[in-house]
Amino acid sequence: MTSTAPYLLTPGPLTTSRTVKEAMLRDWGSRDGAFIAMNARIRDRLVRLVGGGDTFVAVPLQGSGTFAVEAMIGTLVPADGKLLVLVNGAYGQRMLRMARTIGLDVAAIETPEDRPVEPAALDRALAADPAVTHVAVVQCETTSGILNPIEAVAAVTAAHGRALLIDGMSAFGALPLDAGRTPFQAVAASANKCLEGVPGLAFVLVRRDALDAAAGNAHSLSLDLHDQWKGFEANGQWRFTPPTHALAAFDRALEEHEAEGGVEGRGARYRENARVLIDGLRAMGFRTLLPDHLQAPIIVTVRMPADPRFVFADFYDRLRERGFVIYPGKLTVSDSFRIGCIGRLGATEMRAALDAIRATLDEMGVATGAPAGEGNQE
Amino acid sequence: MTSTAPYLLTPGPLTTSRTVKEAMLRDWGSRDGAFIAMNARIRDRLVRLVGGGDTFVAVPLQGSGTFAVEAMIGTLVPADGKLLVLVNGAYGQRMLRMARTIGLDVAAIETPEDRPVEPAALDRALAADPAVTHVAVVQCETTSGILNPIEAVAAVTAAHGRALLIDGMSAFGALPLDAGRTPFQAVAASANKCLEGVPGLAFVLVRRDALDAAAGNAHSLSLDLHDQWKGFEANGQWRFTPPTHALAAFDRALEEHEAEGGVEGRGARYRENARVLIDGLRAMGFRTLLPDHLQAPIIVTVRMPADPRFVFADFYDRLRERGFVIYPGKLTVSDSFRIGCIGRLGATEMRAALDAIRATLDEMGVATGAPAGEGNQE
Ligand SMILES: Cc1ncc(COP(=O)(O)O)c(C=O)c1O
Ligand SMILES: Cc1ncc(COP(=O)(O)O)c(C=O)c1O
Repeated sequence: MTSTAPYLLTPGPLTTSRTVKEAMLRDWGSRDGAFIAMNARIRDRLVRLVGGGDTFVAVPLQGSGTFAVEAMIGTLVPADGKLLVLVNGAYGQRMLRMARTIGLDVAAIETPEDRPVEPAALDRALAADPAVTHVAVVQCETTSGILNPIEAVAAVTAAHGRALLIDGMSAFGALPLDAGRTPFQAVAASANKCLEGVPGLAFVLVRRDALDAAAGNAHSLSLDLHDQWKGFEANGQWRFTPPTHALAAFDRALEEHEAEGGVEGRGARYRENARVLIDGLRAMGFRTLLPDHLQAPIIVTVRMPADPRFVFADFYDRLRERGFVIYPGKLTVSDSFRIGCIGRLGATEMRAALDAIRATLDEMGVATGAPAGEGNQE
Repeated sequence: MTSTAPYLLTPGPLTTSRTVKEAMLRDWGSRDGAFIAMNARIRDRLVRLVGGGDTFVAVPLQGSGTFAVEAMIGTLVPADGKLLVLVNGAYGQRMLRMARTIGLDVAAIETPEDRPVEPAALDRALAADPAVTHVAVVQCETTSGILNPIEAVAAVTAAHGRALLIDGMSAFGALPLDAGRTPFQAVAASANKCLEGVPGLAFVLVRRDALDAAAGNAHSLSLDLHDQWKGFEANGQWRFTPPTHALAAFDRALEEHEAEGGVEGRGARYRENARVLIDGLRAMGFRTLLPDHLQAPIIVTVRMPADPRFVFADFYDRLRERGFVIYPGKLTVSDSFRIGCIGRLGATEMRAALDAIRATLDEMGVATGAPAGEGNQE
């Protein structure tokens, strides 16, 4: 287990099932009937995951999740539109940077990384700026692992008659998003987060009417979601060579997702993972950045222990040796590291990770302090 | 062999070796030492394939080949530059469309699909238009399978002091391109053509000085080659989630490419494939679109037989049943279909494909005419 294939306790790339990987053991012709049927099945399933009915269409895209987010923004926000981005972490910042690179008129409301975005601030901003046509928000800001109040954000945006674009990347497939209840225009996500496919493939679920109206908007040919969609509608095929093996893996991953009970079942496993992890870390004296009610069951941000013997790079390497890859932190508000709860892992693996962490701390002679009290468990 | 995994006689996705696919049977952490080393190895190997020394750098990119071509154009041609595209097929057209979408000043010299691009016409155009900063050309125009005179184009471009961007997609790894002999600024290609990796990954080899000067040019964050490169230079890591499994497959594919004798060995196998295929087709009475001296050993365009019993869709399906997927034609100059010679296939498979074609024609009762004479073998 250790040096060849460690468990990936990160927000991606993450651990996938053996059967998902085995689905990549054949080659597919991209114009072949069986492959076209597979793509149709994948697209249908994705729409069903948000209860999109006939109102939404799924547009898969080559590349990583960022590509899909950029395609969503670049295709749906017209040149004379204006995008307001709610930022409380690196992925919100990235949307801002994208929009600027594209050359769109853009504004932001920034909130610290350990605080959710604020619907009330959005309400004021939309009232004050009628030029804003689109609002963008990250559902689970993976920077900290915080859950943003997506429904309140959607309600405010809809009340002002603006369109909502969601970066659902790290939440999609594990946290609910229901098109019937939460008004949004599009959500971008990836095969390689909670849906547990392999990386190299992303997608956008978008309202058919909005996409139809978006012809000619895109700043890029490769990232033109409208053109990509038209390709699928015309003959079920991809415009440009699809990642056939990643698609076959994704097809299988979606089947396994359904077999696990869909969003509800997947979410339940991740919630248990997060529970086991957080409880175990606190029992060792670690403190989480976020109070429990803001914590999504996706990735947990852990404050660095004050003990100077805790050298993160060393801690990381030793855990890696024991078969667990965690994620280095990037937060501006706190010195921290992060441990992911997603991928093909359950409570057993989370407990094994805790054992490895405990052994590593012992080895390093690190004191994490007394087991944490209720301080960050509001 | 037949219904589960047919041979792919197309320009991609194509047939890959079992061992290349098996390299995808594990998950990789993208910040992990072993993965970083793998990426460094891939990037080094790619630079060596064009003899790029310290002058060139390799920048891998998520997505299909088109993404890499667009990243090359969008990053290297500055906003006040002008791109002249040599067009003799769909991929030249695509570069034109990309440049227009990006909003670049662009011009084209068009040549029919069965004729190579013309260095003399380029020479006149560059003399007449000093605003042109970059020239773009397709090395092997996969639309017809024609080999463009890349060296003459490079020499003319260099003589005028302009920069050459090459879409080397379908040639890279099988047809020589030597940075020491052929002056060019960048070449874009994909893992899933002659290098026989799986799709989902592309790359650009670019002169370090040109890339260094290209900061801030790109029209897109995801397709910003300069930013992507800076990421690799900083810590060996990808900016955004890499297609880890496709990279592991590519690493293996590059090893197999080297073991086969590199560009020379791979090219020799493809030349034999093309030879066997063309000879066999002509013996059945088919005629190729291109004379032999213009034919690259990548994909062969075959004129449709005049016999009305030859219905292409039927022919395609029956061949598919027999385990061979060919490529439907898209040419404007001639009613045709195409058969690829690339991927993990040798003379044995090409002969088996010929047998299947022969049996299919018999079944359909198609007469292809007398065995072709020297008409298209100039
Ligand atoms: C919320 C969010 N958005 C966007 C991304 C970017 O996805 P990718 O790394 O696949 O480009 C991530 C990746 O972790 C993410 O968590
Ligand atoms: C010459 C050439 N350029 C570009 C492409 C586009 O590559 P992709 O389909 O991977 O986007 C191809 C694909 O066959 C090609 O042959």
